[in-house]
Amino acid sequence: MASTPTSAYGADLQPFAGIASFMRRPVTRDLTGVDVAVVGVPYDGGTSYRSGARFGPRKIREASLLLWGYNNALAVKPLDVLSLVDYGDVDVIPPSIVDTMENITREVGAIVDAGTTVIALGGDHSISLPLLRAHARRFGPLSVVHFDSHPDTWETEYGGRPYSHGTPFRRALEEKLIKPGSYIQVGLHGPTSDARDWQDARDLGVRVITMDEAAAMEIPAVVAAIRETVAGPTYLSLDIDAADPAFAPGTGTPEVGGFTSHQLLQLVRGLKGLELVGFDLVEVSPPYDHGDITALLAANLVFEFLSLLALGKVKA
Amino acid sequence: MASTPTSAYGADLQPFAGIASFMRRPVTRDLTGVDVAVVGVPYDGGTSYRSGARFGPRKIREASLLLWGYNNALAVKPLDVLSLVDYGDVDVIPPSIVDTMENITREVGAIVDAGTTVIALGGDHSISLPLLRAHARRFGPLSVVHFDSHPDTWETEYGGRPYSHGTPFRRALEEKLIKPGSYIQVGLHGPTSDARDWQDARDLGVRVITMDEAAAMEIPAVVAAIRETVAGPTYLSLDIDAADPAFAPGTGTPEVGGFTSHQLLQLVRGLKGLELVGFDLVEVSPPYDHGDITALLAANLVFEFLSLLALGKVKA
Amino acid sequence: MASTPTSAYGADLQPFAGIASFMRRPVTRDLTGVDVAVVGVPYDGGTSYRSGARFGPRKIREASLLLWGYNNALAVKPLDVLSLVDYGDVDVIPPSIVDTMENITREVGAIVDAGTTVIALGGDHSISLPLLRAHARRFGPLSVVHFDSHPDTWETEYGGRPYSHGTPFRRALEEKLIKPGSYIQVGLHGPTSDARDWQDARDLGVRVITMDEAAAMEIPAVVAAIRETVAGPTYLSLDIDAADPAFAPGTGTPEVGGFTSHQLLQLVRGLKGLELVGFDLVEVSPPYDHGDITALLAANLVFEFLSLLALGKVKA
Amino acid sequence: MASTPTSAYGADLQPFAGIASFMRRPVTRDLTGVDVAVVGVPYDGGTSYRSGARFGPRKIREASLLLWGYNNALAVKPLDVLSLVDYGDVDVIPPSIVDTMENITREVGAIVDAGTTVIALGGDHSISLPLLRAHARRFGPLSVVHFDSHPDTWETEYGGRPYSHGTPFRRALEEKLIKPGSYIQVGLHGPTSDARDWQDARDLGVRVITMDEAAAMEIPAVVAAIRETVAGPTYLSLDIDAADPAFAPGTGTPEVGGFTSHQLLQLVRGLKGLELVGFDLVEVSPPYDHGDITALLAANLVFEFLSLLALGKVKA
Amino acid sequence: MASTPTSAYGADLQPFAGIASFMRRPVTRDLTGVDVAVVGVPYDGGTSYRSGARFGPRKIREASLLLWGYNNALAVKPLDVLSLVDYGDVDVIPPSIVDTMENITREVGAIVDAGTTVIALGGDHSISLPLLRAHARRFGPLSVVHFDSHPDTWETEYGGRPYSHGTPFRRALEEKLIKPGSYIQVGLHGPTSDARDWQDARDLGVRVITMDEAAAMEIPAVVAAIRETVAGPTYLSLDIDAADPAFAPGTGTPEVGGFTSHQLLQLVRGLKGLELVGFDLVEVSPPYDHGDITALLAANLVFEFLSLLALGKVKA
Amino acid sequence: MASTPTSAYGADLQPFAGIASFMRRPVTRDLTGVDVAVVGVPYDGGTSYRSGARFGPRKIREASLLLWGYNNALAVKPLDVLSLVDYGDVDVIPPSIVDTMENITREVGAIVDAGTTVIALGGDHSISLPLLRAHARRFGPLSVVHFDSHPDTWETEYGGRPYSHGTPFRRALEEKLIKPGSYIQVGLHGPTSDARDWQDARDLGVRVITMDEAAAMEIPAVVAAIRETVAGPTYLSLDIDAADPAFAPGTGTPEVGGFTSHQLLQLVRGLKGLELVGFDLVEVSPPYDHGDITALLAANLVFEFLSLLALGKVKA
Repeated sequence: MASTPTSAYGADLQPFAGIASFMRRPVTRDLTGVDVAVVGVPYDGGTSYRSGARFGPRKIREASLLLWGYNNALAVKPLDVLSLVDYGDVDVIPPSIVDTMENITREVGAIVDAGTTVIALGGDHSISLPLLRAHARRFGPLSVVHFDSHPDTWETEYGGRPYSHGTPFRRALEEKLIKPGSYIQVGLHGPTSDARDWQDARDLGVRVITMDEAAAMEIPAVVAAIRETVAGPTYLSLDIDAADPAFAPGTGTPEVGGFTSHQLLQLVRGLKGLELVGFDLVEVSPPYDHGDITALLAANLVFEFLSLLALGKVKA
Repeated sequence: MASTPTSAYGADLQPFAGIASFMRRPVTRDLTGVDVAVVGVPYDGGTSYRSGARFGPRKIREASLLLWGYNNALAVKPLDVLSLVDYGDVDVIPPSIVDTMENITREVGAIVDAGTTVIALGGDHSISLPLLRAHARRFGPLSVVHFDSHPDTWETEYGGRPYSHGTPFRRALEEKLIKPGSYIQVGLHGPTSDARDWQDARDLGVRVITMDEAAAMEIPAVVAAIRETVAGPTYLSLDIDAADPAFAPGTGTPEVGGFTSHQLLQLVRGLKGLELVGFDLVEVSPPYDHGDITALLAANLVFEFLSLLALGKVKA
Repeated sequence: MASTPTSAYGADLQPFAGIASFMRRPVTRDLTGVDVAVVGVPYDGGTSYRSGARFGPRKIREASLLLWGYNNALAVKPLDVLSLVDYGDVDVIPPSIVDTMENITREVGAIVDAGTTVIALGGDHSISLPLLRAHARRFGPLSVVHFDSHPDTWETEYGGRPYSHGTPFRRALEEKLIKPGSYIQVGLHGPTSDARDWQDARDLGVRVITMDEAAAMEIPAVVAAIRETVAGPTYLSLDIDAADPAFAPGTGTPEVGGFTSHQLLQLVRGLKGLELVGFDLVEVSPPYDHGDITALLAANLVFEFLSLLALGKVKA
Repeated sequence: MASTPTSAYGADLQPFAGIASFMRRPVTRDLTGVDVAVVGVPYDGGTSYRSGARFGPRKIREASLLLWGYNNALAVKPLDVLSLVDYGDVDVIPPSIVDTMENITREVGAIVDAGTTVIALGGDHSISLPLLRAHARRFGPLSVVHFDSHPDTWETEYGGRPYSHGTPFRRALEEKLIKPGSYIQVGLHGPTSDARDWQDARDLGVRVITMDEAAAMEIPAVVAAIRETVAGPTYLSLDIDAADPAFAPGTGTPEVGGFTSHQLLQLVRGLKGLELVGFDLVEVSPPYDHGDITALLAANLVFEFLSLLALGKVKA
Repeated sequence: MASTPTSAYGADLQPFAGIASFMRRPVTRDLTGVDVAVVGVPYDGGTSYRSGARFGPRKIREASLLLWGYNNALAVKPLDVLSLVDYGDVDVIPPSIVDTMENITREVGAIVDAGTTVIALGGDHSISLPLLRAHARRFGPLSVVHFDSHPDTWETEYGGRPYSHGTPFRRALEEKLIKPGSYIQVGLHGPTSDARDWQDARDLGVRVITMDEAAAMEIPAVVAAIRETVAGPTYLSLDIDAADPAFAPGTGTPEVGGFTSHQLLQLVRGLKGLELVGFDLVEVSPPYDHGDITALLAANLVFEFLSLLALGKVKA
Repeated sequence: MASTPTSAYGADLQPFAGIASFMRRPVTRDLTGVDVAVVGVPYDGGTSYRSGARFGPRKIREASLLLWGYNNALAVKPLDVLSLVDYGDVDVIPPSIVDTMENITREVGAIVDAGTTVIALGGDHSISLPLLRAHARRFGPLSVVHFDSHPDTWETEYGGRPYSHGTPFRRALEEKLIKPGSYIQVGLHGPTSDARDWQDARDLGVRVITMDEAAAMEIPAVVAAIRETVAGPTYLSLDIDAADPAFAPGTGTPEVGGFTSHQLLQLVRGLKGLELVGFDLVEVSPPYDHGDITALLAANLVFEFLSLLALGKVKA
């Protein structure tokens, strides 16, 4: 890994100073010996309401400078354990979702194939489909844990078109990127287009825990349900709109009545010990954020995931 | 109902596109066959702190375009059941609360008298008095459910003046627009001018459940208390400042320590089965909103109320 | 034109009240007897920096409510002269610029073919190509007046792709939608990718007046140059980033050192008497606007154009 | 003048510290020996678009802490010459413009009658009428210099009502508060309701210099025209919307194409030597301001006026 | 206490009007007969991320105007019981934390020595050290209750420097300003620099209740733990970042996953009956606040503390 | 220069994508063969009003991604000519201006001594003193061109302290870092503390062209005056508050009535051919910026300076 030392990025400086690579890690595409790469996917052409998620990766990187390093809840300092780099961003093509998806699968696929775990920063939720393609190519059909206010399993959107931020998981199921019976959605809430929307997900074999159910069960039971559902190589997709707009105002299609930040932190920590092979955090839309609180929540959720990877490596 | 078809408003388009009438419904004053009319009341001259609620109706309409249509919690798609129109706004007169109240009572009274249920979007809370006058004229004294951080039953405000956003329910009680013993206030919190403020409400025969009491009782018990208190034609008045400022920053007189959005959704749903005849949602002040989260919460609470009306019609 | 009377939209109310159709005009797709239709084109997938222009049409409509009606500089009250409607928005498809362009050409083409003049509200500048296609189909090759900080005549963008907000006028020239020698660009400023960018435009036969040249010539001379260049059916394309960011912060690719609002008003008024057949105002990006000043400038520039159409009709 | 010493307000501290009275002057209602009193009039019920000007006085006070003290252009340090206090705010009554106007005339009248010059901070422009009443009572009919984008001489507004922010100068003319032939309006621009609006002002005997005329004449000629028009006790009314929205976004009814801040400073300085007896600066609406630039412009314009008073006292 | 009567500050006006001294109390440095003085300490040079807390005192004062006066939860109207003044701000020196700390200790020490209880409004958390010095000088070693997301007991910061907002309580322990075994920290959460950070606090004799522990114990048990820990003269230090960023976005180093506003109100009220001798509320950073919700939360927490002082005086 | 290739930073991507190093240049501290280094100096402890300039370097870097590369006005593509790197930020110490200045002189001095030209991004204006020290050490006493609204030649600030953002040029003159008679200040405007402020600068041998003088002379004459004044190694210090707040709202001590962005661009270009050896651009305060227009203006002014360096190298 021949790259700029982290001191140039300001690793010894206070968080207001220096270059905003993810956690001051070197910016490089040399993956030799790299455990984990943070990859930005700044595409927002799939969103049905507010655009702006193209600036999600940049702002999450900026917020990551506040991640002091040690995870008290999980008792691990990820960067002591893992070799992490900031890969920079995938070349997305706003005028064409199809071209964009090809780029994502190709670029991320190469990283995954190199044996490096990818943490993808969205971008809107349409990017999960090419990300799942890249991961399934290496790991086979995946278990999927999916936190969201929407199922994203619409048949089509935009008058019959297959690709958008409302359809990625339907496509992934059709393409058999997801292991049957090993897919759980947590946090659905808010109005939908039709009575069928949530039921469609269930009919496709997805285990669904709605926000109302999660509130009634409480977090430990939700965690238990997740752990019952998934097994083997597991991919986590986290749409920040699973959080209530009070906690995540900066998002494309906010839905009132969602999780608190404390609940989301507990949910991600609850995945400890699973065989986590990939992660995307999507739908952070900075133009609608205030005081960067959404980006900061996102950065912390990435940090929890990173901590889980570190624990996995320690154990292995 | 001879009016512009909803396609012109963008009914088939994504929520970022098209004209911001409430849920893309036709803008019309022809009420033939209309079950429910959304009516804006953009008056903010009664507020004692931040003005700006005059833009409440416009922003709630805009946020309503994100209401995808089907209510999962209540299992109903209101627009399949109800004929809904956007009536536009009442002609309010900022320099004169008295003239404004006359206009409200007259314009809304005509709608109510036509047998159409009104959903009024404020505006500050002073508009509830003329709205209650319009409804009581048709339905007689009303049961009232009132979510708020303030009792709004001051004797006078502004140096002895009878009309403001602090007095509407005192006036309504005096004018016998409210049925004795059938009025409940939920969510009072924050400092008041005097020890008497909350007690005054109780002395006037109002059942009061403070925020602290509601937190201790939990929502189902609050719902039960509401259902014990009201009977017959019931009017719901919802001041968005019942929500904590984290969930509703865009309001005129925010009070810290209020409800979450999830709790408010549950409270409105708890009114299922009551004989609901009118509704106002007030005190959304867009200049102080961020990421439109207050307007979005308001639009969702309107949607819950609309869903209750739809269930009532299905049942009837 | 059987549609909702303007009173329902609040034509008699103050600008803070009522429904935000363009200048309170009826929302309708019935073009019988309609002189001018305002059409929103909320596509922002072509932009190379900030998205958000998808909300341009909605916010310009909102700002249009402040247009009191009479144009003092041109001494005309356009709505007394012209029949104007708000057509609503074209069905744009963010994930695909190609599908979007087809929709624009088809929908706008139908309006143009009906003999109604279109005022298109963007959206990013990529929409000008399908708009020019729709107009050239009816009027033949067009004279074009183009206010902008960028030439938008790149060969390709996004790694060889033909369609984006950087290429529409190159494509239009190639497709012979523009009359040779009758195309003028005014206001170019800021850095470009290469020395060739501005020269390419000139080599393509475009008359270019840069911002620095315009500042030296002063506005009347610029107006004279425009009037020398164009003749016959003339299309005006106005990218709001021709204005300095102080006057138009809410845009996708701002360039410092541009026109003042006063200069832009004078430039549009300078087109008086030309045979104006079409107009787009693009690149208003509300999430980056403040106090709505960009949307308000845009609405006023539309109003100037509308006034020119009215004068044209009066004269004809 | 027995009041708190200015050190308690932070007179020796940097502008970020201390209490935001106007320029750290004592807050007091004891006018003994006081030359000038700054008086807030936080009424915004007369505005026809954005409210919020009720916070104008507070924010202008805050911005005033950046006024370092010495006026370089006019070569005077006003606080060395004048005894200045911050009177606090008039008791305005948002629900009633009539009651509000009575309070203003009474409270400000008492100050004027005490021989203290009033600098009134609005508030919307409706406050000028009661302010003129208070001044005319003492000084007789006044010369008036009025900077604005609107004439504010409408016959009525809000469906025939006499009082609003669109009518104060019509009422003042009718009430003979203004000396015939001694009233000049500078800066009118933007659309009006009707062709008559500007002509009405002229027909009422007002000398009108529109923004376009002012731009053509340049500032020194405008200053000369003002000095030709007024004589004797002169009142200056400055609506911040005379400035372009780029320079003053935080206002109630912004009109694009107005003055720069530099021009406005020159205009106020141009009044040097006139017999200035009163001043209002109105229509600063902080919720729509950004970076407080409108409030800061307002504070500086007040400072120029204050400097003129100081020069007048030195000379006298 | 010879000072300006509160009517000049607008004590009889609505909260939008008048001068923003704390709760309209007189601004004075005459402490004769004064029970409590609110003192601003606008220093933000100790912060490691966002500056801006220098405007904290000004904005908390502004928000305090919404504190209507009577505390319903504690059944007391503090200003009926206590003589309260607004002292204004300490003279802080941004370029030098050492000079600033000396000023704080000297100025606040003089107030404390005069027998007046100080409520200090920060400013960043570095100000607690000189505040503790001022209090310990009079009261001897103090019990300390400290609400925060960070322990602020780092050995050094900024490359070995002893003073910053990360070290004040380490210094206070070293200087024996705090009574051994009588110091409790509540609410720690988020990542830290090292595994040692929280343990260091414990090793220094601090009782630590983390946010996760507090969530599990629930508030009454946390209150009980606090009451077990402290005794005698007790100082409360409240860092607003103990609240989740949803409730307090306007702060210097936000940490996701914190307290709700309702919980913080309960925590402060839980100190009823303790011998409270001093209080600071720190780290409100207005440039990052929205809708002033952080400042409003801060003002309410000050009001709760003030109410406790009032109850203490009533009892005494 | 062994460092990460620019593709990792997104050199081939659109400006919304990739890592925000300055113009995508490699982040490195290896200066072998480097002509120019961009160096952030994120210190804001010297400012007397708004802090926040500590985020200036980060935001200017972000805005620099919009600098497409070719300078049309100067006909040069700087990165084709110059080897440019992003050095990252100096280690500043907010609690101590003295320690901070030592770090700046040492770190920047090492770069300058290595023969690399430094472009310093502030931070507040206090950083110019250590920057001048670093440059004078190598080049001897410097000619200085200084654009600003304030002279920054106060004797002391903060009660007699020598270092702040109001004093750097007084200190530099005293320390003989500036060549007698070769220092020009351009753009002074706004109130000052005293009549002496501007005269002091003149008495110290500074040539002063105030904003009012510059407006009267027009830009070419100002440029000529600059060129008359300076000779030999010349340092340019550009305080963004030389621009009017309409063009640069995001700054620490804004003064109304300043330059337009177009004028500032012309002023910097006017330095063509001078022997430029150093540059700082200071006082960009992002928390008060809107739509990033201040940061964008700053980035463009840096680009003009960079273009001048490129022209100098071409010529040499």
